[in-house]
Amino acid sequence: MRPLLLAAALSALAMPAIAAPPSDPLRTGAEAARDRALTDTTAYDFVESLTTDVGQRLAGTEASARARDWGIARLTALGFKNVHAEAFPVTAWQRGEEAAAVVSPHPQKLAILGLGGSVPTPPEGIEAEAVVFRTYDDLLAAPVGSLAGKIAIVTQPMVRTADGSGYGAANPIRRSGPSEAARRGAVAYLHRSLATGESRLPHTGALNYQADAPKIPAAALSVIDSELLEHMADRGQPIRIRLKLQSTATPSTAWTVTGEIPGSEHPEQVIIVGGHLDSWDPGTGAIDDGTGMAITVAAAHLAGAAHPPKRTIRVALFGAEEMDFSDDAFTAAHKPELANIVAVGESDSGSDRIWALALPAGAAKLGPMKTLATVLAPLSIYVSPEPSRFGGSDIGGLTMAGAPTIAFRQDASRYFDWHHSADDTLDKVDRVQLNQNVAAWAAFLYIAANTDVDLHPPAGTPSPARP
Amino acid sequence: MRPLLLAAALSALAMPAIAAPPSDPLRTGAEAARDRALTDTTAYDFVESLTTDVGQRLAGTEASARARDWGIARLTALGFKNVHAEAFPVTAWQRGEEAAAVVSPHPQKLAILGLGGSVPTPPEGIEAEAVVFRTYDDLLAAPVGSLAGKIAIVTQPMVRTADGSGYGAANPIRRSGPSEAARRGAVAYLHRSLATGESRLPHTGALNYQADAPKIPAAALSVIDSELLEHMADRGQPIRIRLKLQSTATPSTAWTVTGEIPGSEHPEQVIIVGGHLDSWDPGTGAIDDGTGMAITVAAAHLAGAAHPPKRTIRVALFGAEEMDFSDDAFTAAHKPELANIVAVGESDSGSDRIWALALPAGAAKLGPMKTLATVLAPLSIYVSPEPSRFGGSDIGGLTMAGAPTIAFRQDASRYFDWHHSADDTLDKVDRVQLNQNVAAWAAFLYIAANTDVDLHPPAGTPSPARP
Repeated sequence: MRPLLLAAALSALAMPAIAAPPSDPLRTGAEAARDRALTDTTAYDFVESLTTDVGQRLAGTEASARARDWGIARLTALGFKNVHAEAFPVTAWQRGEEAAAVVSPHPQKLAILGLGGSVPTPPEGIEAEAVVFRTYDDLLAAPVGSLAGKIAIVTQPMVRTADGSGYGAANPIRRSGPSEAARRGAVAYLHRSLATGESRLPHTGALNYQADAPKIPAAALSVIDSELLEHMADRGQPIRIRLKLQSTATPSTAWTVTGEIPGSEHPEQVIIVGGHLDSWDPGTGAIDDGTGMAITVAAAHLAGAAHPPKRTIRVALFGAEEMDFSDDAFTAAHKPELANIVAVGESDSGSDRIWALALPAGAAKLGPMKTLATVLAPLSIYVSPEPSRFGGSDIGGLTMAGAPTIAFRQDASRYFDWHHSADDTLDKVDRVQLNQNVAAWAAFLYIAANTDVDLHPPAGTPSPARP
Repeated sequence: MRPLLLAAALSALAMPAIAAPPSDPLRTGAEAARDRALTDTTAYDFVESLTTDVGQRLAGTEASARARDWGIARLTALGFKNVHAEAFPVTAWQRGEEAAAVVSPHPQKLAILGLGGSVPTPPEGIEAEAVVFRTYDDLLAAPVGSLAGKIAIVTQPMVRTADGSGYGAANPIRRSGPSEAARRGAVAYLHRSLATGESRLPHTGALNYQADAPKIPAAALSVIDSELLEHMADRGQPIRIRLKLQSTATPSTAWTVTGEIPGSEHPEQVIIVGGHLDSWDPGTGAIDDGTGMAITVAAAHLAGAAHPPKRTIRVALFGAEEMDFSDDAFTAAHKPELANIVAVGESDSGSDRIWALALPAGAAKLGPMKTLATVLAPLSIYVSPEPSRFGGSDIGGLTMAGAPTIAFRQDASRYFDWHHSADDTLDKVDRVQLNQNVAAWAAFLYIAANTDVDLHPPAGTPSPARP
C-alpha cells in the first residue's frame, strides 16, 4: 500500500518537466536532479548498509568509532571531497542491566528503557511505593516533599500529529520530569514513553537534570505498561515497584564526518546539509537518523555529481545529536566561516513524505526560490508562508548565529511509533517516500548551489530562538 | 475506528429481533441472549482483571497457581456452581537469561526468545558460524552432517491469512526445525518468529524434540532481526553468532478450573466450552487466551444465568495448553461422561470477529441449528458447509473420542502480529468484536442447552484426525 502513496506525484512529474520553458536552465536542471532522485537507490542503499554493517551507534561508544569509519568510507565512495572527521568531547552514557517490576499487589514485569543520562540505581535496585499521575501537570501540582521515598510515574500520553508537534508538547515529561519529581522527594521516576501507537517496546531519550534537584534514576515505560499501571491504580490499592538501572557515564570522543562537492565558481560559499550519525542503542537507527543522512547525502550527490555546482555543497553527519553534544562543537568549528554559509538544513524526522518547505524570512519572494517552488509543487510540496525558525538540533548554534536556515516539514504521523525504540529499523523505510525527500532536497541544493541567491533575512528580522 | 467495524451488525439487529415469529420462543430466547451480549461488559472485565491482577501465567509456575485462584474466584463471583480445579502434572519450563548477538563481521544485538521446551546452552553460551536458509525446505534439503558445528537459521516468513492457516503451514519450522537442524549437525537453531507484521519483539512457542536427534538450544528471532540476518547473508561473508539461553525444566502441577450452570431437566447432559488459562510469559496473555475464556464464560453466563438451561453448561479454563499438557489430562478425567457430552468447543484465536460456525457433520440440517443460523446471520456469521473437525488443542482428545465438536472461525488477520509475544496485551482487545464473539457463543449455548438436539455425526462418519 505504502508505495502507492506517492504514485500520483510520480506520474504527475512527466508533464511539468516537459512543459518547463526551455529558456530556464535553472528550472530544467533542478527538475532533472529531482527526477533522477525518484528512481535512485543511493539513499536506500545508504540506510541498508548503515543498519546492516554498523547497526546502533551510541555516541562515544566503540560503535560510534565504527560508524565514523563507515561514514568516511561511504562519502569517499560517493565521490565527496575533503572527507574527514571532526572530533569533539562527549560523555558516553551507556545502559547496563535494566529491570522493573510490580512487586505488589500482583507481581508483573514492566518493560522499560533507562533515559539517556540517567544515574544508576544502587546495585540492588530501588523498591518503593508508586504514585501514578495521569498528567504531567498533576505531578507539577504536587507539593514539595509530597513524594518523599516514592517512585513518581507520569502516564500522560503523547499526541499523534502529522507535524510532530505532539512530541514537542510532551517533551518536558521526559526532559524535566526527573528533576521535578526529585524536587518533590521522589527516589525514582518513570513516565509513559513519548510515543504513539500501542507497543510493548519502550522509547528512550535524553533527560536534563536541573542543578537544584537531586539526580534520581529515570526510565521510560512502554505505552502498554503505562496503561497497565493505570489499570492497577484504578483499584486504589498501594502499588510497590522495584527498579534497577545500571548505567555508566564516561568521558569519550565523538566525530562529525563531513564531505564536500566543491563549488566551481565560489568554493568558499557553502551550503551545509546533513543528518546525525549517532543513534540510540535499542534499534539500528534507521529512521533516526539514518534516513536523514541518506536523504541529504543522496540529494547532494544527485544535485552536484553530474555537473559541478557553482557553490560548495557540504554534507555533515553529525556525531552526537541524541545527547546534545554535536551542535556546540560544530558551531564553534564553523562560526569562522559564518559569512560564507549560504544555508544550513538538517533532515531528522524520519523518511516519510515532505509536505512543506520553510525558508528564512523573506526568501520565498526571491526569484530562485520561486523557481524552486515550481519544481517542488509536483512532489506535493508547498513553500510555507511561515518562515523557518529552528532547523534541527545540530545546526541550532549556526541558526542562532545568523546562518540562513531551511526546514523541510515531513509527515511525522508514524515516526513516533518507532522513534528511540528497538523498532527503529530498516523495514520502516518507505522507499517511495524516502525518494520524495531526496528529490526535494536535490532540487533545493541544485538551485541554491547554482545561483547567487542570498537567503539572509532582511536586516532587523528578529533572530530565532531555540524551541 | 475499530469500534465502528461492527456498527452495521449492531444496528441491523433491532429489526430481526422484532420480526422474529412470536411463536418461536427458542429463537426469541437466543436472540435475547445474543443482544444482551452486544452491550455486556462481562467478557472485557474478565480480561481486564486477568491481565491486570494476574498477568502472565506460564503453566506450572507460581503465577499458574495465582491464575487458578483467580479463576475459581471469578467463576464463583459470576454465579457458576461446582467450581473447582482439576490438578494434573506438567513440566514447568522457564526461561532464564537469554541473549544473542552477531559477533562478526559487524557486532549487532539480536532480539530473540527461547522456544518453550528448549534445552539451555552451556552457561558461557555457544559461539558458531551461522548458516542462513531462506526456506525451511532448504534446511530439509541440507545433507546430514552438513551443519556440523553451525547455528542453523531459517528466515522463511509466515503468511498472513484471515483464517489463520498461515500459522499451521509454518508450524513445522518451530516445532520440528530444532531436531531437523540437529540431525544435520547443527549446535543451535534460530528461526524467524512465526508471526505477521514488522516488530522487534520475538514470538515464542513450543518446540517438539524428536527422539532420534540430539536436543539443541533453539530460539525465535524477531521478524526484523531475521530480515537483518538476510541482509548480512547477502554480503556473502561468514557470520558468527553468539547465543545464550539459560532455561530450566522441573516437574510441577497445573490446574484446569471448571464451573457449571447446572441443567434443570438433564443435568447429566453437558455442553463444555472454554479457553485456556495458561499463557506464554512475555505478554499478559490477553488474546492468547484471556479472551477465549472471557468469551465462553461470558456467553455461558448470558445464556444461562437469567433462565436456567435444561442441560448443563460447563466452562473450562484449561491449565496448560501452550505446552500441550491439558488435553490428555482433561480427556482422561472426562471420558467417562463421554456419552453425555452434547458438544465441546474452545475459543483460542484471539477476539476478532467470528465469520463462520462449523458444526459436526450433518448437524447444520437439524431444526435447532437452522434456528441458530438465523440468529447468527445478523452478526455477519454463516454456518459453514464444511463440518467441524478439530475444535481446539485442549479438547482434541474428546473430539477424537467422538464428542460432537463445534468451531467458531474468527478473523485471524491481526492475531499473529501479537500472539506469543510481549505484545499480547489488553490494548489489542477490540471490545465490539469481542462482544460479537460473546453474542455468537451465547446464541449457540442457549439453543444447545434448551433443546434436545443431538449433534453427533451420523453413524459411519469418519472420526476427525488431529491437524
